[in-house]
Amino acid sequence: MERFDVLRTLAQPNDTKLVLLVMDGVGGLPMSPDGLTELEAAHTPNMDRLAKEGSTGLHIPIAAGISPGSGPAHLALFSYDPVRYQVGRGVLEALGIGFDLQPNDVAARGNFCTLDAQGRIVDRRAGRIPTEECVRLTELLQTRTRLDGVEHFVLPVKEHRFVFILRGDGLSDQLTETDPLVTGKPPLPVRPLADTPEAHRTATLVNSWLSQAREALKAEPRANGVNLRGWGRDPRLPQFPDIYRLRAAAIAVYPMYRGVARLVGMTPVDHGASIEEEFAALRTYWDRYDFFFLHVKPTDSRGEDGNFDAKVEVIETVDRLVGEMMSLSPDVVLITGDHCTPAKLRSHSWHPVPFLLWSETALPDAAQAFGERECARGVYTGIPATDLIPLMVGHAGRLSRFGA
Amino acid sequence: MERFDVLRTLAQPNDTKLVLLVMDGVGGLPMSPDGLTELEAAHTPNMDRLAKEGSTGLHIPIAAGISPGSGPAHLALFSYDPVRYQVGRGVLEALGIGFDLQPNDVAARGNFCTLDAQGRIVDRRAGRIPTEECVRLTELLQTRTRLDGVEHFVLPVKEHRFVFILRGDGLSDQLTETDPLVTGKPPLPVRPLADTPEAHRTATLVNSWLSQAREALKAEPRANGVNLRGWGRDPRLPQFPDIYRLRAAAIAVYPMYRGVARLVGMTPVDHGASIEEEFAALRTYWDRYDFFFLHVKPTDSRGEDGNFDAKVEVIETVDRLVGEMMSLSPDVVLITGDHCTPAKLRSHSWHPVPFLLWSETALPDAAQAFGERECARGVYTGIPATDLIPLMVGHAGRLSRFGA
Repeated sequence: MERFDVLRTLAQPNDTKLVLLVMDGVGGLPMSPDGLTELEAAHTPNMDRLAKEGSTGLHIPIAAGISPGSGPAHLALFSYDPVRYQVGRGVLEALGIGFDLQPNDVAARGNFCTLDAQGRIVDRRAGRIPTEECVRLTELLQTRTRLDGVEHFVLPVKEHRFVFILRGDGLSDQLTETDPLVTGKPPLPVRPLADTPEAHRTATLVNSWLSQAREALKAEPRANGVNLRGWGRDPRLPQFPDIYRLRAAAIAVYPMYRGVARLVGMTPVDHGASIEEEFAALRTYWDRYDFFFLHVKPTDSRGEDGNFDAKVEVIETVDRLVGEMMSLSPDVVLITGDHCTPAKLRSHSWHPVPFLLWSETALPDAAQAFGERECARGVYTGIPATDLIPLMVGHAGRLSRFGA
Repeated sequence: MERFDVLRTLAQPNDTKLVLLVMDGVGGLPMSPDGLTELEAAHTPNMDRLAKEGSTGLHIPIAAGISPGSGPAHLALFSYDPVRYQVGRGVLEALGIGFDLQPNDVAARGNFCTLDAQGRIVDRRAGRIPTEECVRLTELLQTRTRLDGVEHFVLPVKEHRFVFILRGDGLSDQLTETDPLVTGKPPLPVRPLADTPEAHRTATLVNSWLSQAREALKAEPRANGVNLRGWGRDPRLPQFPDIYRLRAAAIAVYPMYRGVARLVGMTPVDHGASIEEEFAALRTYWDRYDFFFLHVKPTDSRGEDGNFDAKVEVIETVDRLVGEMMSLSPDVVLITGDHCTPAKLRSHSWHPVPFLLWSETALPDAAQAFGERECARGVYTGIPATDLIPLMVGHAGRLSRFGA
């Protein structure tokens, strides 16, 4: 019996409210051996109280030593084995912009890039062109390119990023990427990764589109080339609301996270772009959903910037809003990151991620505050990220007994 | 190579004695956030000493967030993956009353119930009739019902509960249950869950028996109906004494636990019904077995009653007996619960279960007493329950080296 089948059998609705608050990349490292991490350095009286009253631990997003990308890290948080359920980044981007991806659509991430006269890449991000420029260029590509027997969509995401989607029968996502990942080389042609008629046909179609795109963009000063990568199609994941019998809302600013949430069947809801507006959305939608995924991005961004102090500030902002959030009387609150992004490393990392699980039914453990080293004293140290949702649902009294 | 195959290859006999002491549902929660759990509140100098001298940890019976029933929780303690090895409750009950279940027998749990004049259930437990009444009624049913081509057995368990067994060729346990689980509705007929001749035939036989039973009981004032559920047959589990090369005795009062133990090949031995008599049985059988599973039920019962203080008292009684037990000079002692039953929740729960592993070969860890929060400081925090027996057997020096 598969894990989701077991959970699906046990899940039962009740009137509890659950909040999964994700501070992207929240886990960190001290800048010097004797120092504090970002989370430890932040003044977080509200989260400290929840950590003290609740249970804590460290979770492993993917596996020992592995730094996750945002997609797999969130799938893992949502309880999906990220190795088993691998989703093409193109799919995530397509869903993230609200594109109504069909089961047979094949999607890729597109990046505008700058090519020199010899067709070699000189800037893989085309100088991060403004989003309006991206909109104009994708419209141009949509109009000026044509493929036989299939529909295609070229849609803007943000800055130099767009989505490319093929729709039709007999397509495959088993294709190589065009991005050589270094400058000084031209974009690569797409090759089939499977020896099937579908993969060969799709490669031919995409290569035809790539040369049409190059032609259409040749007069552009910066965005005169494109790369396609992250090929994928809707993996038709088991649906979160069905497994857990939860009406699930996703509160997230970035398309990517709304996309992953949509993929598992959560409903992305409308709200403003600030952290304050995200928390306000909790109150707005409180009665309409049972489960809220609330995603805070700037912790990760500031970590990637290497800006320790700015990351601390974001955490402190979140803490104030967590204090207000508790007036909604949630039954189960889980606060964590999808991975660590230590400012010291300026990058996602593989370290275990601190979390706190607050609920009336949680065992208060040794952790007296919310931080990496305190959470290492908790009762849930070293669990896989995929255990977090079952723990939340269990603490909400929403899982019936397994066996007699 | 399967896990049991690895263990079977490594297991070697020696003259050590191992005791697995299970205080059913021992794990708990503080009644108020700053309080102690039942185990922490109990005065347990003997178990505290063993925890201090030995290694400790918290185990996960089934999986994160899942509250186990007694059957799967014990299979897990005995090292059997409880999701893989699912056993019909009827089988456990049959084995628990010492019935010599044959490989092809099909067994169900029976409950006497009270029906109104329209045949609707008004009491699913027939007013919990006394066990003597159950004995008389099962004898009546055994005599007054008859099935073509198969043998059947109707045997009393306790109060309103009995076991129904079919014996013969071409039978199936793929059947629905009759209990509608609510009052005000009549018992349901049995339907086949598989489209096989065996399932169809068995459903017909059982429905015939149900109408004969109804007829036989019609003059009874309370127990004038029956329900059958938990269909199953002997899952023919790998046998514990074979895997670990241990002569294994089970000391348990309740049929259910004797049943699970028998299922894995342990030998339930005779003893009185008190906790003191269970511990006395250790001494009685000490020379005849290598491994003793000793089950204490009242910790769970008092937890389910919501009686924190009474649960504490049971734990203190056990602690005194543990002190005496140590005079037998066991080589490895593991003390734990099959799951938590916090008085606060009045129910089995999903929380990790504290355990202590005492042995000359154990690493004394940070735990200074036996309790949830102390065990959370131990070296074995968060391991699956299925790891406990291999740990015991390893500490007993009964597993040879894996590989050269």
